[in-house]
Amino acid sequence: MTDTPATPEAMLERLKQSVQKSGFTTMLAAQPLKCWAGESEILLELRPELTQHHGFAHGGVIGALADNACAWAAASVAGDVVTSSYTLHFLGPALGERLRAKGRVIRAGKRQITVQADVLAEKGQDSKLVATALATIARVER
Amino acid sequence: MTDTPATPEAMLERLKQSVQKSGFTTMLAAQPLKCWAGESEILLELRPELTQHHGFAHGGVIGALADNACAWAAASVAGDVVTSSYTLHFLGPALGERLRAKGRVIRAGKRQITVQADVLAEKGQDSKLVATALATIARVER
Amino acid sequence: MTDTPATPEAMLERLKQSVQKSGFTTMLAAQPLKCWAGESEILLELRPELTQHHGFAHGGVIGALADNACAWAAASVAGDVVTSSYTLHFLGPALGERLRAKGRVIRAGKRQITVQADVLAEKGQDSKLVATALATIARVER
Amino acid sequence: MTDTPATPEAMLERLKQSVQKSGFTTMLAAQPLKCWAGESEILLELRPELTQHHGFAHGGVIGALADNACAWAAASVAGDVVTSSYTLHFLGPALGERLRAKGRVIRAGKRQITVQADVLAEKGQDSKLVATALATIARVER
Repeated sequence: MTDTPATPEAMLERLKQSVQKSGFTTMLAAQPLKCWAGESEILLELRPELTQHHGFAHGGVIGALADNACAWAAASVAGDVVTSSYTLHFLGPALGERLRAKGRVIRAGKRQITVQADVLAEKGQDSKLVATALATIARVER
Repeated sequence: MTDTPATPEAMLERLKQSVQKSGFTTMLAAQPLKCWAGESEILLELRPELTQHHGFAHGGVIGALADNACAWAAASVAGDVVTSSYTLHFLGPALGERLRAKGRVIRAGKRQITVQADVLAEKGQDSKLVATALATIARVER
Repeated sequence: MTDTPATPEAMLERLKQSVQKSGFTTMLAAQPLKCWAGESEILLELRPELTQHHGFAHGGVIGALADNACAWAAASVAGDVVTSSYTLHFLGPALGERLRAKGRVIRAGKRQITVQADVLAEKGQDSKLVATALATIARVER
Repeated sequence: MTDTPATPEAMLERLKQSVQKSGFTTMLAAQPLKCWAGESEILLELRPELTQHHGFAHGGVIGALADNACAWAAASVAGDVVTSSYTLHFLGPALGERLRAKGRVIRAGKRQITVQADVLAEKGQDSKLVATALATIARVER
């Protein structure tokens, strides 16, 4: 992402095109809902191949969503970025029909962006916080 | 995993059966190579659907492997476990033909196991460290 | 801390007595302001011996405050606790007259409490976020 | 630290001078033993004011040592640096006569250095691993 698009809709459109080039995000079928002004939101419908042997969403799926939510929140203020590190805390079994991840920039520095993200498991109208993450996202130098 | 199997081969066999129940690990096609005496090793052949828009292995794939390597190293000494939290540092672009993750128990406490894991990208005979993780794995209470 | 005191004031009083037994917290001269219902607040007047060679508050001081803020927020809901691990992100130089740390329980589980904390540097009326932390605090078994 | 000194002894000497400008490290009385070729070592004699209410070394002391060990290992290859973030896992009660922290650079990138550190508690000839850390240290731009 070179120049930041002028509207939230244009930014989301660009992100969706970028996601199509990412085999893994396509395989997960994660849907970007928001990527603007330091915030991101992603939705993922749960299905059998995203679970693990205890029956709830696999930690790797939750990690991938949290990582994406952090990177996209950072990208909304910094353009092309790459995840440098993240810490993920699992807060409870991720049972439900879908996962929703929300990222939020805490601080955007010259070289690094610090981002916080929550992952929620939803069933009908219920929503439960199942993981929280703290990430360092690096700007890609040109 | 209830009773710990008596040999490394029996442990690996049990792990492979457990993995078949995990939709996500099956989808990744991660192969357990070792799960014994506090150590684990996993191999993953890279393929287009495991990459991202910069062309190298997606962080979510690396995260999932690191998480699994930590959990399996812990399982080898503690039976049924669940990942509590992990910190993942990306060290360079994960380009190559396959990823290899190696986990190692640092300390097995009564309730928690602290595990370190490395993820390597391999191409032919070359091997490069691309990520390192530190995790807290919790014993599942009965 | 065995039985949880019945009021915020009684809890704070008990915490102050506990702090007097902690040589290091006494040496820092960190003042507990709040420890109740999953929240904590600590104030620390900055002075020359708490700085480092770049002139701002030493990372070790910020780390100690963040650790304490997390542990005390957890103690307010769980009694006797011990820090299991924490991740600390520095967000900017900690210049000012005093540091203020605020902890907040994200989830209190049966064995572990997940806590988030912010550290602020204050000068006159100005306040600036200088660090953020995510911690796992363990209940002490009896 | 601008130009890297030519010998381990000169580097250690420079570090000791730098430490004297750090009020907090002076207050802790942490002794640098090594800072060379990506490795660091620090010794700290334990004394009552470095403990906490459970009687062992305060987590803030262990965190400060781990932070310093990471920063100094990074400084040995990168000159002037600042800690960006670290994750610290406590592995057991830090009882003993002294603490020893050892840092080791895992990867030195253009802008960031990833470092691992262990903290040991020693009593007579006995040595016990009490904490392990993983840190991101940033090069200070000029």
